[in-house]
Amino acid sequence: MNYRSITFILGCILIMEGIFLTLPILVALAYGESQIFSFIISLIICLALGILLVLFKPQKLVFNVKEGFTTVALGWIVLSFFGSFPFYFSKDIPLFTDAFFETVSGFSTTGASILSDVESMSESCMFWRCFTHWIGGMGVLVFLLAIIPMVSKGQSHGGHMHLMRAESPGPSVGKLVPKVKTTALILYIIYFILTLLEFIALVICRMPVFEALLTAIANAGTGGLGIKNNSIAGYSPAIQWVITVFMIAFGINFNVFFFLLTRKFKSILKMSEVKCYFIMLIVSVAFITWNAYDYMLSFENNVRNASFQVASMISTTGFSTVDFNQWPSASKCVLIALMFTGACAGSTSGGIKISRFIIMFKNIKAQLLCFLHPGTVYKSRMDEKTIDENVSRAVNIFFTTYAMIFAVSVFILSFDNYDFETNFSAVLASLSNIGPGFSKVGPAENFAFFSPLSKYVLMFDMIAGRLELYPLLLLFYYRMWRRNIVRNKKI
Amino acid sequence: MNYRSITFILGCILIMEGIFLTLPILVALAYGESQIFSFIISLIICLALGILLVLFKPQKLVFNVKEGFTTVALGWIVLSFFGSFPFYFSKDIPLFTDAFFETVSGFSTTGASILSDVESMSESCMFWRCFTHWIGGMGVLVFLLAIIPMVSKGQSHGGHMHLMRAESPGPSVGKLVPKVKTTALILYIIYFILTLLEFIALVICRMPVFEALLTAIANAGTGGLGIKNNSIAGYSPAIQWVITVFMIAFGINFNVFFFLLTRKFKSILKMSEVKCYFIMLIVSVAFITWNAYDYMLSFENNVRNASFQVASMISTTGFSTVDFNQWPSASKCVLIALMFTGACAGSTSGGIKISRFIIMFKNIKAQLLCFLHPGTVYKSRMDEKTIDENVSRAVNIFFTTYAMIFAVSVFILSFDNYDFETNFSAVLASLSNIGPGFSKVGPAENFAFFSPLSKYVLMFDMIAGRLELYPLLLLFYYRMWRRNIVRNKKI
Repeated sequence: MNYRSITFILGCILIMEGIFLTLPILVALAYGESQIFSFIISLIICLALGILLVLFKPQKLVFNVKEGFTTVALGWIVLSFFGSFPFYFSKDIPLFTDAFFETVSGFSTTGASILSDVESMSESCMFWRCFTHWIGGMGVLVFLLAIIPMVSKGQSHGGHMHLMRAESPGPSVGKLVPKVKTTALILYIIYFILTLLEFIALVICRMPVFEALLTAIANAGTGGLGIKNNSIAGYSPAIQWVITVFMIAFGINFNVFFFLLTRKFKSILKMSEVKCYFIMLIVSVAFITWNAYDYMLSFENNVRNASFQVASMISTTGFSTVDFNQWPSASKCVLIALMFTGACAGSTSGGIKISRFIIMFKNIKAQLLCFLHPGTVYKSRMDEKTIDENVSRAVNIFFTTYAMIFAVSVFILSFDNYDFETNFSAVLASLSNIGPGFSKVGPAENFAFFSPLSKYVLMFDMIAGRLELYPLLLLFYYRMWRRNIVRNKKI
Repeated sequence: MNYRSITFILGCILIMEGIFLTLPILVALAYGESQIFSFIISLIICLALGILLVLFKPQKLVFNVKEGFTTVALGWIVLSFFGSFPFYFSKDIPLFTDAFFETVSGFSTTGASILSDVESMSESCMFWRCFTHWIGGMGVLVFLLAIIPMVSKGQSHGGHMHLMRAESPGPSVGKLVPKVKTTALILYIIYFILTLLEFIALVICRMPVFEALLTAIANAGTGGLGIKNNSIAGYSPAIQWVITVFMIAFGINFNVFFFLLTRKFKSILKMSEVKCYFIMLIVSVAFITWNAYDYMLSFENNVRNASFQVASMISTTGFSTVDFNQWPSASKCVLIALMFTGACAGSTSGGIKISRFIIMFKNIKAQLLCFLHPGTVYKSRMDEKTIDENVSRAVNIFFTTYAMIFAVSVFILSFDNYDFETNFSAVLASLSNIGPGFSKVGPAENFAFFSPLSKYVLMFDMIAGRLELYPLLLLFYYRMWRRNIVRNKKI
């Protein structure tokens, strides 16, 4: 393990966080808020510690897989830990565990909150809260790759890929262009443009500018921390539709937008995951509109609520316009299924990802065929390519790992002695980075009532979910920390 | 597909069922019950139809994998369908769906009941109800293999194995002795002796003889349909302890008893699954005794209740001595986990089986090591043997298949609009062949309130769970019914 390379990157992350913290300072300045001091202190801490770590720069930045995973896992923990200081110092969130929870929820784009009254928060803290979603949405290290030139010095492409692979969502990482760094830059530009488009659309729909900004950045990261106590319910139908459309957009594999820009329409049609995504959307909206039809409301209102909630769950954003906790069981069941699947790989959404489910179904089919014709080997195909045996196995193991983490988390939460639906959906909402769940953690409720232990478990789940389990799991795996392993001579 | 071979075996199954039906007739005769006529009519129907089917005997019994799976799946459906006639004819269960449900629950050794008042049932129906557990516990076709000599005529060992593999629980079928038929016979003898031992032990503990017989056969199949409205709660502590011990015994891989008889003690110590089973038992009992401690009861009573319930859940029997629905969430969570795992492969228990979980954990570990040292291939080992790549993959796919069937079932059940815990635990209790679940299907409740659609879904789950998913799944797979597939020249 090359510790210096890791601490160097952690230093870079802290400096970056310090720079990001100037934005809420500007907001605090504009609104004349006293919270400005807590942001300045946080900024100083981040910069000081960051510069200190960067000073111990190693001669050569070595990034093997081990270093990649460790850096990513530690990077996200460090980012959240220091990111929670402004909330804590400003007393907007008086308990440190709660402040940490809110920040982890922010960076991991979960959107689970411990606040019962969001609106009493200062504007600057509100901004920082939503801004963490935006940072978390695209990945911190991919960001570093894109903007900090020195990181790439003395590093092979392999090193880049290790970092990117550890942080990017989905079963396999595709490069849009040969250079990893350029790929990262393209993705960021797409991300930025989409956010800007949403902001403009919201302003056109007469959302106040500051609220439009916050909603747009929280939506871009598919986060879901709202700025109103009733989330999006209080806004006009037009605004709700705009947010629905953009929630769907941020659930699409970003490669689609790249192909759109470069007019490679055929490549889009080949993507079975995207097709599946839209089929799931349409079917779910139709079903819920029918199943949860509220005769007190107009048809448009019913379709809007169903669309909004389906888009919110599948993209793992977590905004809400209705208390879907009150919906019939079958509709809730559909939402739970969408919470498991999440949207497309290569988007900012969480969850297991649709492509993994497609591969799992193909594996089941191959297994059935295997029974019918023993001795024959079936190669499953997706997007006109044969699915690699390793990818296929990794997807199955990912699912079992997800289930195991899920089970252990529910077990630890159950010590708080709340009902099964609460524990189950709280873990699901955290591990899939959604935010609200059902029962006691429904959209009209919050996570404040959990014990500190449960909150730390949920934080673990949020980061594990965002980083697709393995980086965080490896951090707790003793073999990770062995200096040398005889079997493998490379390390 | 060789249809004649299938119908021939189905005929044999019906004749066998007819023969089995003589036993409840004897019971009805002894108790002078009018229900005797419904049993006689059922017997006549079974024999007549069975003989008719057997008359169309094919010249050569061909059993490839396809035929094996289809026969097993259809065999269990046929068995349950005709087995429900006595309940329906005698009006002990007035609705056919309910009678069918109860019989499927019996043969699949689930033990979920739709009866609110068991004790009002006639003795003969009560006997038949428990006897279905005993038949279902060991497998119908393995039974056929063991007793009907003609089935083995003109058949290779492969044919035998295909039938046995389709019906036997666990990731891989081991043969105790070279001949499949002898293996089946040995297993039956062990099964019979264990049942007899339990019966004797219960009688010694002063349980009435008829009740002891019924409890012993229901326990042997790890079924769980009780003969009292409060299951085992009304019996003496001694009886409860005896049942606990035998529930644990029937959850052990039957090979262990064979090794015990043949004094191969070393072979037992090698079985990591059995070790794991006992560790799980001890840890769970200790945890629940502590977590669900009831200060109104004595220490012995607390330990007894915890042991009984843990043994009942892990062996997927489903008896109860307390309303564990009232236990704290953490204890319920442990029980839910045990309901998923089940006990050892090669026992009469249901669930996913401990050995599958061991393999899944080893797969996760191999995946983590794979991340740390890319390019290195890790071979997992179990019981001093390398785990075959195919078995390892099949186990992962089994788990995903289990999860998918689980999700779809919960979704369909949710149309009845009961709470999530009810739907979740009802499906779990059916798919893992346990019986009682939590909330509205807790040990003090029953399954009568579900809609007919939900009941059929649960029946599907019960049989699917008993046959380890694939036989029933293949029955609904269109490729199964294609006459010829070009790719495979054998068929």
